Amino acid sequence: MNNLAVVGHSVPRIDAKSKTTGKAVYANDLHFPNLIFGKVLRSPYPRAKILKIDTSRTATGVGVTVLTHCDIPGKNAMGPMIADQPILAGAEINFYGEAVALAGAPTEEAAEEILDSIQVEYEPLEAIFDPVAAQQEDAPVVHAGGNLADHIKIRKGNVAAGFAESDIIVEGEYRTQRIEHAYLEPEAAVAKLEADGNVTVWTCTQHTHFDRRAIAAMLGLSQNRVRIMQTVTGGAFGGKIWSLCPCYAALLAFKTGRPAKVVYNRDESILTTTKRHPYIIRYKTGATRDGRLKAIEVELTSDTGPYMVVGKGVLARSVIQAAGPYDITHVKIDGYVVYTNNPNCGAMRGYGGPQVALAHERQMDELARRLNMDPVELREKNILRIGSSTATGQLLEHSVGMPEVLQTLRAVVAAIRTEMPSENPGKKRGIGIGLGFHGIGSTRGGSQGTAYVNLLIDGSATVICGSVDIGQGSDTVFAQIAAEELGLPLEKIRVLTTDSDMTPDCESTSGSRVTYISGRAVQLAAQNVKAVLFEKSSVLLGAPPEKMTLKNGMVIVENNLENKMSIAQVLKANYMQGVSGIGNFIPRTAALDPECGLGSPCGTYAFAGGVAAVEVDTQTGKITVDKLVNIVDVGKAIHPQSVEGQIHGGSSMGIGYALLEEIKTVAGVITNPNFIDYKIPTCMDAGSLSARIVEAGEPSGPFFAKGFSEVTVTPVAAAILNAIRDAVGLKLAELPVKPERIVEMLKGRRVTRVKGRGMKEEGRGKRDEGRGTKGEEELRIEN
Amino acid sequence: MNNLAVVGHSVPRIDAKSKTTGKAVYANDLHFPNLIFGKVLRSPYPRAKILKIDTSRTATGVGVTVLTHCDIPGKNAMGPMIADQPILAGAEINFYGEAVALAGAPTEEAAEEILDSIQVEYEPLEAIFDPVAAQQEDAPVVHAGGNLADHIKIRKGNVAAGFAESDIIVEGEYRTQRIEHAYLEPEAAVAKLEADGNVTVWTCTQHTHFDRRAIAAMLGLSQNRVRIMQTVTGGAFGGKIWSLCPCYAALLAFKTGRPAKVVYNRDESILTTTKRHPYIIRYKTGATRDGRLKAIEVELTSDTGPYMVVGKGVLARSVIQAAGPYDITHVKIDGYVVYTNNPNCGAMRGYGGPQVALAHERQMDELARRLNMDPVELREKNILRIGSSTATGQLLEHSVGMPEVLQTLRAVVAAIRTEMPSENPGKKRGIGIGLGFHGIGSTRGGSQGTAYVNLLIDGSATVICGSVDIGQGSDTVFAQIAAEELGLPLEKIRVLTTDSDMTPDCESTSGSRVTYISGRAVQLAAQNVKAVLFEKSSVLLGAPPEKMTLKNGMVIVENNLENKMSIAQVLKANYMQGVSGIGNFIPRTAALDPECGLGSPCGTYAFAGGVAAVEVDTQTGKITVDKLVNIVDVGKAIHPQSVEGQIHGGSSMGIGYALLEEIKTVAGVITNPNFIDYKIPTCMDAGSLSARIVEAGEPSGPFFAKGFSEVTVTPVAAAILNAIRDAVGLKLAELPVKPERIVEMLKGRRVTRVKGRGMKEEGRGKRDEGRGTKGEEELRIEN
Repeated sequence: MNNLAVVGHSVPRIDAKSKTTGKAVYANDLHFPNLIFGKVLRSPYPRAKILKIDTSRTATGVGVTVLTHCDIPGKNAMGPMIADQPILAGAEINFYGEAVALAGAPTEEAAEEILDSIQVEYEPLEAIFDPVAAQQEDAPVVHAGGNLADHIKIRKGNVAAGFAESDIIVEGEYRTQRIEHAYLEPEAAVAKLEADGNVTVWTCTQHTHFDRRAIAAMLGLSQNRVRIMQTVTGGAFGGKIWSLCPCYAALLAFKTGRPAKVVYNRDESILTTTKRHPYIIRYKTGATRDGRLKAIEVELTSDTGPYMVVGKGVLARSVIQAAGPYDITHVKIDGYVVYTNNPNCGAMRGYGGPQVALAHERQMDELARRLNMDPVELREKNILRIGSSTATGQLLEHSVGMPEVLQTLRAVVAAIRTEMPSENPGKKRGIGIGLGFHGIGSTRGGSQGTAYVNLLIDGSATVICGSVDIGQGSDTVFAQIAAEELGLPLEKIRVLTTDSDMTPDCESTSGSRVTYISGRAVQLAAQNVKAVLFEKSSVLLGAPPEKMTLKNGMVIVENNLENKMSIAQVLKANYMQGVSGIGNFIPRTAALDPECGLGSPCGTYAFAGGVAAVEVDTQTGKITVDKLVNIVDVGKAIHPQSVEGQIHGGSSMGIGYALLEEIKTVAGVITNPNFIDYKIPTCMDAGSLSARIVEAGEPSGPFFAKGFSEVTVTPVAAAILNAIRDAVGLKLAELPVKPERIVEMLKGRRVTRVKGRGMKEEGRGKRDEGRGTKGEEELRIEN
Repeated sequence: MNNLAVVGHSVPRIDAKSKTTGKAVYANDLHFPNLIFGKVLRSPYPRAKILKIDTSRTATGVGVTVLTHCDIPGKNAMGPMIADQPILAGAEINFYGEAVALAGAPTEEAAEEILDSIQVEYEPLEAIFDPVAAQQEDAPVVHAGGNLADHIKIRKGNVAAGFAESDIIVEGEYRTQRIEHAYLEPEAAVAKLEADGNVTVWTCTQHTHFDRRAIAAMLGLSQNRVRIMQTVTGGAFGGKIWSLCPCYAALLAFKTGRPAKVVYNRDESILTTTKRHPYIIRYKTGATRDGRLKAIEVELTSDTGPYMVVGKGVLARSVIQAAGPYDITHVKIDGYVVYTNNPNCGAMRGYGGPQVALAHERQMDELARRLNMDPVELREKNILRIGSSTATGQLLEHSVGMPEVLQTLRAVVAAIRTEMPSENPGKKRGIGIGLGFHGIGSTRGGSQGTAYVNLLIDGSATVICGSVDIGQGSDTVFAQIAAEELGLPLEKIRVLTTDSDMTPDCESTSGSRVTYISGRAVQLAAQNVKAVLFEKSSVLLGAPPEKMTLKNGMVIVENNLENKMSIAQVLKANYMQGVSGIGNFIPRTAALDPECGLGSPCGTYAFAGGVAAVEVDTQTGKITVDKLVNIVDVGKAIHPQSVEGQIHGGSSMGIGYALLEEIKTVAGVITNPNFIDYKIPTCMDAGSLSARIVEAGEPSGPFFAKGFSEVTVTPVAAAILNAIRDAVGLKLAELPVKPERIVEMLKGRRVTRVKGRGMKEEGRGKRDEGRGTKGEEELRIEN
C-alpha cells in the first residue's frame, strides 16, 4: 500500500553507526585546553535561610574559582514558565540539594575539595511537604502569594444534571508517585568564552534555544550572543528541557575565561533535577444503565515542589485529558498545582497524562463491573470519534484513531483470552485494558516549527531545524521526510538540528511534537525548494511546474522519462548552485478559555489502547506481566521500527510506573537517588511487549503523520492494574503496586493513610525492598 | 539628509575589537590534538612528464604520511569554471610550482624533510610562454583541443560604418602585466575528519561553498558532508576564491584520520596561486570632429596560464567593459584567452576591468589631444547616462552616476589646477583623468543572494548569509541593514556568515556583489520577519500591518507612541520565541548572446573617475603622485568610512598597478616571489589619496546601495599615465611605468619589443631594481 520510497520504511537510522561504534561524541567526551571542572555545593536542608557563605578557607590557585549568587552578572533566576528558581541560591533554600555555590578547578577532585572548604551558615526553616496541608492557612509559605501555584478548570455542560441523569456513579481516589526519568546519560555541559565575548555551550538538551535564553539572561548578554550546541543526548524524556547544568558551565567559563565542564553524577542528577509530579486524584463518573457516560467530575492536586518549572503546564494537560478519550456531555474538572519543599517536579513523557489515565481507566473498569458490561463494550459506547467533542469542547474532524485502536484491542483481548494457559497453583491470571489519548504539541497553543532545506547542485541536501534528536530518532524522520519530498535517496540528506545559532527555535523536543510540527515544517521547506526548482525547470522542460515531479535527482514531466533534467542541469542552466527554502508550521489551535477551560488546545491527538495479561502470585504478591500489547494511532508510521521502539519504550515505562518505580522522600530528602534503590524495568520485567500500529492519517501532518511518543505510556499502568483487578479482585488505586501490597491486601489488611513527617528515615543508598516504614505517605488501599 | 538610524553612519565595525586586540582567530591560530602539518612537493619545471614518484626513501613514523594523486579518493581535478587542474599532478606538470606530492608529519620541519626524501623523475617537455605564439599551429599544446581557451565577442552596430563616419581615429596597443594580490595573510587551512566520516575545514576563503564543492568532489563525498568554516581572513582580493590549500588539509585529514594543517609561506603563495591576467590590447577609436565617439574596435589577448580557473570569466568582463563607460553606437570587440605554461591567472579586484580601462582611457586622452579638446569635455559628450545603452546593448534605466562623477571630477581638476604649485627645477607636473565602470555581480547572469534573519524575543537578532567578510566589512554592512530594517540598535545584531553548513550559497565574495546582492537578501529577510511580526501584532494593536513601524524594539502604529507593543509582548501573546525569515535576491539580468555578445549581464553598474596629479623628475624618472582623487558612485554609502577605506585601497592598488607591481617570469618561473623584490605601495607611495562619494541610488539595492569595490581600481592607472603624458608628453602604453623607462623614453631612446625566452635569468630572491635585461618581454614604447 506504501507507494512512498523512503517514508514508511524502516531505513537504517542515520545516527546508528556513530552510536554503535562508539564514535558519537557526548558532552562528557569533549575536551579543551585549560579546561576547568565545575562542582556544585548543595544545600543539606530542604528549607533554610542562608546566613553566610564563607570561602575564606578555600585555597587559591591557577584555574581555581568559587562563585556564588553574587557573581551572576545578569538575572539569578530561571525557569521555563516563570523565572522563579535561583541559579545559585542567595537568601533562601527551598529544596534539599538546591545549589548554593559553584567551584571550578583543573580537576574534578580539586573542585570537590573546594566544595569541602566552603563554609555555609544556614538557619533551617519550617518546611512543607504535603500538598494538601500546604494549602492550609497556617502552612509555611514556599512562595510569596501562597502555595497554590495555579488552579485550572474545565466547566462543560452541567455536571449536577449529568449525575442526576446517571444510573450508576462510581467514585474513586487515586494517588500517583514521584518518579525519575532515568535516562542513561546524566546532565553534562561544556562551555567556552569566545574571543568576541560570546559564549558557546555544548550540552545534552531537549531545547538549545531555551538554554540560550536562560544563559543569556543569567550572563546579561543578548540571546544572539549565546550559542548552544546540542551534543549527542543519551535520553531525556522531559528531564532535559530544563537544566541548570549548562548554566553552571557557562557561568564558570564566562567568569574565568577558561573552558569549563560540569557533569552531574547520578546522585546529583536524581536529587536535583525534576521528577514526574505526584498527584492526588478524585474522580466521580456517572453513566446510564446502558453504559453511556453522562458526567464526570475530577479534582487533581499536583505537588510541583518549590519552583514552577512547568507545573502548571503539566497540570493543564492533566485537566485537558482528565475525561479520557471519551465524549462526555457534562464535565467539571479542577486542577490545583501546589508549591512544597519537596523535590522539583517537571516535564516527563506523558506530561500529566499518565496520572489521569490511571484514574479514568480504573474508573471505567469499575463502572463496567457495576454495569456488568464488558469493559471493551463500555468504552466502545463512549470513545471519541470523528465528529466528537472533547472535554474542552474541541470538535475532532480528522485523525481520530480511537475506534480502530479499540477494534484492534478487542481482537487482541480475544486472542489473549483464547491462548491464555490455565492457572498455575497459587497463581491467578487476569486481563486488563486501558485507553488514553494525548494532544500533540503544547496545550497552550502556538506550537511552532520552522525548518530550512538547502538543496545542493550535486543532489545532496541539508535540513536545518531547531528540534533536537534526543535519541528518539527525529533526525532520521526529518531525513526521510526531506528525502521523500525531494525524491532523493536517504543518504543524500544531512540533518542539522543541534546548533542554536544555525536553527530557528522550534520549542523543546517534548509534547510529542517533533514529527508532527517540525517534521511538517521540514516538508514545507522541501516543497518550497521543489517549487523553485520546478519554476526554474519550466522553460527548460517546456512544461508548467504543476506537471513536474522530482525523482532520483531528476525533474520529470508527467512521469515521461523522456522529458527530464537532472537537478544539476536545471541549476547550472540557471547559474545556481543550490536552492534554499523555509518551511513554517503552526497547527491550528484555540487557547483555552481561562474561566470555562473550553478551547482547542492541540492541532491533533494521538490515541492508544493497552492490553495487559498478568499473573499474580497470591502467596508472594509477585506480579508477572505476561503480555503487554500497546496499540497506538500514530497517523502514519514514518519509520515503523522506530515507532515500535517508541511503543516498547512507553510500555516499559508504563510497567515501571505501575509496578516498580518511586522516588522516595523523607522530609523532602530523596532516599533512593541511585539505580540500586530506584528500580526501573529491565528486559526481565518487561514481559512480552507487543506493539500494534494504527494509522488514522492526520492531514496537516507530514505524510499524514502525527506525534505519539507520550501516549504510549498513558494507558499502560491502568491496563496492568485492571488486569490485577481481573486476576485477584483488588481495587488498586495507588502507584506503584508492589508485591507486599498485594500480599497485604489479599490478607484483607486495611492499611489506612498515614500522614505526617519526620518518620523513620531510610538511609540514603540503602537498598529499599519496599518493606518497613514508608516515608511521607503510606499507600492508601481501597479494597 | 540621512533619516536612517544606522545605515549611512560610520558605526564601529563589528570585527574591529577582535582584530585590534589580537583576539581574532586566523586559520593558522587553530590547533587540535594530534595535529599534523602538511607540505606540498612542487615541480621545478614549468612543463614536464612525471615518470616516477618514488617514496621508498621516506622514513615512516607515527603521523607521517606521503600522498600522491593515487591517494585521491574522488576527482583529482578542480577549478571554478572547468575542473581542469589536478590537485596533485599525476601524469604531467604544466606550470612551475605545480603540486606533485603532499607530505604530512607532526611538525612542519619533519614535513619539509619528507619532501626532501621524495624522488620524482621528470621528463621536461617543451613549454609555451607567449600567448600569441601559443595560438600558432606549431606551438606546444598545453590543452587537448588547443591553446585558445575561449573567444568572446561583441558585435554591435557596424564598426566599418562607424569608422567611416569618424573624423579622427586613434589606434593604440597596450600591455598590462601579471600582478599579485599581496594579501597580508597567505593561504591557510586546518581540516578534521569527524566521527561520522564528514569533513570540516577551517580556512581563509572567499567562498566556503566553493571549497565545499571542490573538497567533496576530491574526496568522493556528497557536498552536504563537507563543512567549511571561514576563519578570519586577512585579505583576498580575488585570490582566495579558489585555492588548493584547503584541499590539501582536507585530503590529509581524510586519509590519516588526524587533524591536518597546511599553511603556505609567502614564496609558495606567490608562486602557485593565481595572478591578475596580463593582457595584450589593441584599440581603434573613432570620433567626429565635435568629439562624439562613433566606433570602437578592440582586440584583447589574455594569458591565463595552463588552467582555466576563471580565465574566460575575467575575459568576459573585459569584453563587456572594453568600450568604457561610454555610449557608442558601433562596437566590435574580440577577446581571446590563451593557455600557456606561465603561472595560473585568476580573479583579482577589477577582474578584467583595469586592463581595458588603461586602454580606453589612454585612447580618450590621445583622442582629446587630437581633437584639441579638454579631456573632461570629450568624456562629457560620450558618457553613459540614464537612457544610454552599453556596448552589450543594455539599456540603463537607473543608478547611472557617471554624469555626477564627471561633474565632481571637473571641479576636482579645476581645484587641483588652481592650487598646483609651480614646477621645481628638473621636474614637471601634470594632471590626468580616467573613468571606469564595473558591472555588479557576475557577468554571466544569475548572481544570487539568500539570507535568513532570526529575530529573537529579547529584541536581538541573527543574520545568516553565505557571503563571507574577507576584511572589507560586509558583516558590518549586513548588521547595519538588518538593524535599520528591524529598528534595532546595531549591537543587537549578530552576523553569521562563515559556515557553509549554516548558510545558503551566495557565491563568492567577488564581483563587488556582496552589499548589493546579499545585502539586499538580508534586507528582504528582515522585511519578511517584520511582516510576520506586524501580522501577529495586528489583532493586538487593532491596526493593519501596513500602518506599523518597528523602532527600538517596539511595534508602533502610525508613529503614535501611545499605540505600541514591544517585540517580546507581541511574541509572548502569540506563544512565539522568535520569528525567522528568508530573503532571496537575484538581480534582473539577461545573459549575453554568444554570437553578438548583446545582453544585460549585470543588474547594476558602479562608476568611477580618477584624477591624478603627478610630478615627474626628468633626470631620475621618478614619478611622484601628489594627488589621487577617486570619485566613486556607490549608490548609497551604507558605511561611509568603509567606503572611503575601500576607495583608498583601490586607489593604492591602482598606483601599484601603474607604477610598481609586476610578477616577473623567466621561462615560466616567477623570479620575485617575495615582498622585497615585488613592491607594493606603502603610505610613502600612496601620495595624497582622496575619496569622493557619489550616491546615484540603485532602487533594487538595499537602501539604494550597490557594489563599488572593484571600480575603485579601474580608472587609476590610466589617470596616472595620462598625468605623466600631461607632464612630460610621453605616450605610455605599458604597465608598470618605472623611472628607468621614463628616463629612457625622455632620452628619446626607442626600445623595441624583444620576443623570445631563455634570456639571462634573474636569480630568484635577487633584488630587482627594474634595471638590466628583462625577462620574457621588453617594454614596448610608443613614444
